[in-house]
Amino acid sequence: MAAVAASSHAPTPLLKDELDIVIPTIRNLDFLEMWRPFFEQYHLIIVQDGDPSKTINVPEGFDYELYNRNDINRILGPKASCISFKDSACRCFGYMVSKKKYIYTIDDDCFVAKDPSGKQINALEQHIKNLLSPSTPHFFNTLYDPYREGADFVRGYPFSLREGVKTAVSHGLWLNIPDYDAPTQLVKPLERNSRYVDAVLTIPKGTLFPMCGMNLAFDRELIGPAMYFGLMGDGQPIGRYDDMWAGWCIKVICDHLGLGVKTGLPYIWHSKASNPFVNLRKEYKGIYWQEEIIPFFQAVALPKDCTSVQKCYIELSKQVKEKLSKIDPYFDKLADAMVTWIEAWDEQNPAGAAAEKPNGKA
Amino acid sequence: MAAVAASSHAPTPLLKDELDIVIPTIRNLDFLEMWRPFFEQYHLIIVQDGDPSKTINVPEGFDYELYNRNDINRILGPKASCISFKDSACRCFGYMVSKKKYIYTIDDDCFVAKDPSGKQINALEQHIKNLLSPSTPHFFNTLYDPYREGADFVRGYPFSLREGVKTAVSHGLWLNIPDYDAPTQLVKPLERNSRYVDAVLTIPKGTLFPMCGMNLAFDRELIGPAMYFGLMGDGQPIGRYDDMWAGWCIKVICDHLGLGVKTGLPYIWHSKASNPFVNLRKEYKGIYWQEEIIPFFQAVALPKDCTSVQKCYIELSKQVKEKLSKIDPYFDKLADAMVTWIEAWDEQNPAGAAAEKPNGKA
Repeated sequence: MAAVAASSHAPTPLLKDELDIVIPTIRNLDFLEMWRPFFEQYHLIIVQDGDPSKTINVPEGFDYELYNRNDINRILGPKASCISFKDSACRCFGYMVSKKKYIYTIDDDCFVAKDPSGKQINALEQHIKNLLSPSTPHFFNTLYDPYREGADFVRGYPFSLREGVKTAVSHGLWLNIPDYDAPTQLVKPLERNSRYVDAVLTIPKGTLFPMCGMNLAFDRELIGPAMYFGLMGDGQPIGRYDDMWAGWCIKVICDHLGLGVKTGLPYIWHSKASNPFVNLRKEYKGIYWQEEIIPFFQAVALPKDCTSVQKCYIELSKQVKEKLSKIDPYFDKLADAMVTWIEAWDEQNPAGAAAEKPNGKA
Repeated sequence: MAAVAASSHAPTPLLKDELDIVIPTIRNLDFLEMWRPFFEQYHLIIVQDGDPSKTINVPEGFDYELYNRNDINRILGPKASCISFKDSACRCFGYMVSKKKYIYTIDDDCFVAKDPSGKQINALEQHIKNLLSPSTPHFFNTLYDPYREGADFVRGYPFSLREGVKTAVSHGLWLNIPDYDAPTQLVKPLERNSRYVDAVLTIPKGTLFPMCGMNLAFDRELIGPAMYFGLMGDGQPIGRYDDMWAGWCIKVICDHLGLGVKTGLPYIWHSKASNPFVNLRKEYKGIYWQEEIIPFFQAVALPKDCTSVQKCYIELSKQVKEKLSKIDPYFDKLADAMVTWIEAWDEQNPAGAAAEKPNGKA
């Protein structure tokens, strides 16, 4: 892929004015200090997930806006019901009010990882590389991302597919504490991920994957309205399925619209396992519900006239209501929230209009 | 996956009496010496691809059988027409006459690679690990092979899918000279693959991949009759599509029968790029034919009553004849050869019967 490969030798654009970093609360004061060299030049959107009266201390030098529950209620009015409370799923409010083309979201227990040579990994730079180079969902390339330096399409890869498709999502991974469910955490409390896999790959069309929100970047213009993290936390029967829900939805919509989803590099250092007993309480319904949800998503077909993310998402909400409500009334509520989310998204993102300004230092 | 993970801590079985190594000719005298520590305990099947009067010198200490064209003609009679002449595609004759459960096939310009720590890679041992642990074609695991030590299924992976399916094929990769087609070789003559990606992954159901025969292992009992390398070389209009053809066929059949195909580790050191001008002559028809062949394979549906590899393969031959013959009369001939191959396979592999003994030292 001579033309594309050549462009990969150019310095990676920083996208300083085109990317927001969205963080759900910051409980860990070291977090921003550690990321300062990599994040300081970007704008941060912090979405506080719990008690609005608590203060989040953001160190000097960061450009940020901060939203708490009161802000969300004020800005969205009754439509604020679609945003989770007391759960990091509230981060998706940040995706909605951002006005940038790209989003990077990261958890506050994720630190800078090192590559095998000991060098600090600039996670954001790798995500930008992933998002700016095409994806290859229609045929598997055995040398992984063909657009990386030193790689290409292998013998037998159809030439008509070598242009690839636009990349909508870049899913990064985690060294140290792997993203396990509560049962696996309980069974393998000491397991750590120390395997640095130097690869980025496209998840093939038609294949679902468990999307983790810890270290995730996406193109808001391409897929933003589908990046809804659902109803979790306070008043809801499940937790820890916010990113999974978004992952299933974005994947079927990307497949339908011909967009790509990549996974692999970059790694962050996940410092702290969450409490497996608490996780089990949050997850246990999801663990059996997903046995029906996943076949549902594997079978979803979106009609041809769904030509925008919003149309796809509204159609998906109808199918969720029709086919998943029998599992639990929760899915009826979730299907309604999906519609509310799209309405709120469109209100906050009128074509060409400026958005309401939040509090904070923006 | 506690139970399976535990078993991965046990020493890897060598499968000494259950695996044959199939090599198409040996032009390079260093080849077997380099592999001696890894191959000496296995039985080799060497299939000479050209002039039968030439002698192949096998160093002392190897247990082998050697077949040349005269042997193939004698053993298969008129059915020998399905085995390519003057092309490494003839190696599939070795798959047919082996009586072992597993096959490893490797090219004679592939040497022992080193991992990033400098240790020599025992490619065969890794292939055996890949074949003896399940595959996960129905859902993507973001930490790659969940059965490897130090890895598992991540949060959100359906528990009902964690048993995986039997692995039929293990596709290994290449350091140094990547497996590029002639146009890419011509455009990037100096490109070398120096990226060691420490991963094994299952190619998802419904996704095709370019299978390279340089460093490939498979379970003969599960998929052997579909591992036909087609008609290439002398008297045929194309070359270098032998392994690609087999890869498309085995993938759709594995998908249909619920078997897994893995790619990734192990690496071998591919020492020598083949001549790109010669390759271009061999490949050029394949390069445009594949633009129609791949959509054909992507759309293939095998009926439910195809419950064995043989039945699947015969059905596939019918669809090839029906749908690909319009590209070129070659596909008509190839479809017939697919049927001949299955007839020959069944003759050589009567259930429970011993096979004809070849010449050589076996």
